[in-house]
Amino acid sequence: MNIILIEPPQDTIWSIEQPRQRQHIQQVLKSKVGDQLKVGIINSARFTCEIVALTEQNILVRPLYADPVPAKIPVTLIVALPRPKVLRRLVADSVALGVKKLVLIHSYRVDKSYWQTPFLQQLDHYMQLGLEQSGDVHAIPIEHYPRFKPFVEDVLSQWTQQQPSFVAHPYATHTAPINFHQACQLIIGPEGGFIPYEIDLMQRHSVQPIHLGTRVLRTETAIPVLLSRLFPLG
Amino acid sequence: MNIILIEPPQDTIWSIEQPRQRQHIQQVLKSKVGDQLKVGIINSARFTCEIVALTEQNILVRPLYADPVPAKIPVTLIVALPRPKVLRRLVADSVALGVKKLVLIHSYRVDKSYWQTPFLQQLDHYMQLGLEQSGDVHAIPIEHYPRFKPFVEDVLSQWTQQQPSFVAHPYATHTAPINFHQACQLIIGPEGGFIPYEIDLMQRHSVQPIHLGTRVLRTETAIPVLLSRLFPLG
Repeated sequence: MNIILIEPPQDTIWSIEQPRQRQHIQQVLKSKVGDQLKVGIINSARFTCEIVALTEQNILVRPLYADPVPAKIPVTLIVALPRPKVLRRLVADSVALGVKKLVLIHSYRVDKSYWQTPFLQQLDHYMQLGLEQSGDVHAIPIEHYPRFKPFVEDVLSQWTQQQPSFVAHPYATHTAPINFHQACQLIIGPEGGFIPYEIDLMQRHSVQPIHLGTRVLRTETAIPVLLSRLFPLG
Repeated sequence: MNIILIEPPQDTIWSIEQPRQRQHIQQVLKSKVGDQLKVGIINSARFTCEIVALTEQNILVRPLYADPVPAKIPVTLIVALPRPKVLRRLVADSVALGVKKLVLIHSYRVDKSYWQTPFLQQLDHYMQLGLEQSGDVHAIPIEHYPRFKPFVEDVLSQWTQQQPSFVAHPYATHTAPINFHQACQLIIGPEGGFIPYEIDLMQRHSVQPIHLGTRVLRTETAIPVLLSRLFPLG
């Protein structure tokens, strides 16, 4: 937790309410009254604050000065829904890396049962973990499309008319562009990859396959590898 | 598991013995006699094979032709020992990404108890997971240095005379070089980062701090981000 995220406060002295955050301040940071603390106001700004009261019941802080918020990278990251136990890390990491929007889609090799996981109700919490990790304050939209073909034909095809779409695919002939800079969609398949029908369908809708080298990586590892090639470290 | 790793065989027909591998072939791949299978011989080569026998007790394959083995990237990755539950993924991912050598070190913010974890006895298994993921066959050395200062003064200082060392540090003024290509050491700190004394000591031994941008990333995410900046996707 590299920032304490709070809802927009009503007053000039701010109260930190979430038990998880209070525990972090008391047990990990071991903060005392007078110490500084990085606090973010959700969807607004971040501040270096001073702790003005700290008891079992109550943590109060006062803002000292504003800090810059890390910029997002202009990517819509589209990922085949992973196994439930991977979902939390994948969402938190994608948010921490700064993507502007996250889209979870179905694919032939995604087990249909994954769409029933209660973890899909926890996406806002996983997003908060990613913001806290990276010191960001801006929530991002997270969308789901549980049917592959309508997503590609009706949604992705529209997006691809606005800005290019790339799909990571081991048999692609082009490698990922470096420092691409432009806004784009980036699509990453499930364990085992997209099936040829899916790659074909995306290509027919102007999605460009790019490869990641000869090593097969886990989805969670492929995401930072690709984002870090396409965009400078912000 | 994108490759089945076996010990160097004695015969022209090879037997697959590990229960985990047999289970993968039967339950995940659902292979049949006559199907092809990617098999790697540890520290040697990889082959596309044909399955010639498959029963509950026995899986036998015959090599058809050799496949290229992914190249390593010329990096010694030096990482502060992570929490035990992160260790498995971190080792497997680092091996999957293709580093030539992995070094686990102590640092002020590494809990001393981490050095007692039984997971440190499992490093060869985690390495195998990384090789299986990435389709590589070459094991790498994994070293431990449970004392920071002697490591920097006696070991790292020698290595740095041979090839440059970089340490990821949020307050560095230089950003990570892109497509660096040359052999180097890359050093990544613990959660919470290295303390100023540690950064100073490394700098006095010619280690160059580089920053990763304004977002604070988990160690496991910083590794692929940095490697992917420094080296082209092989």
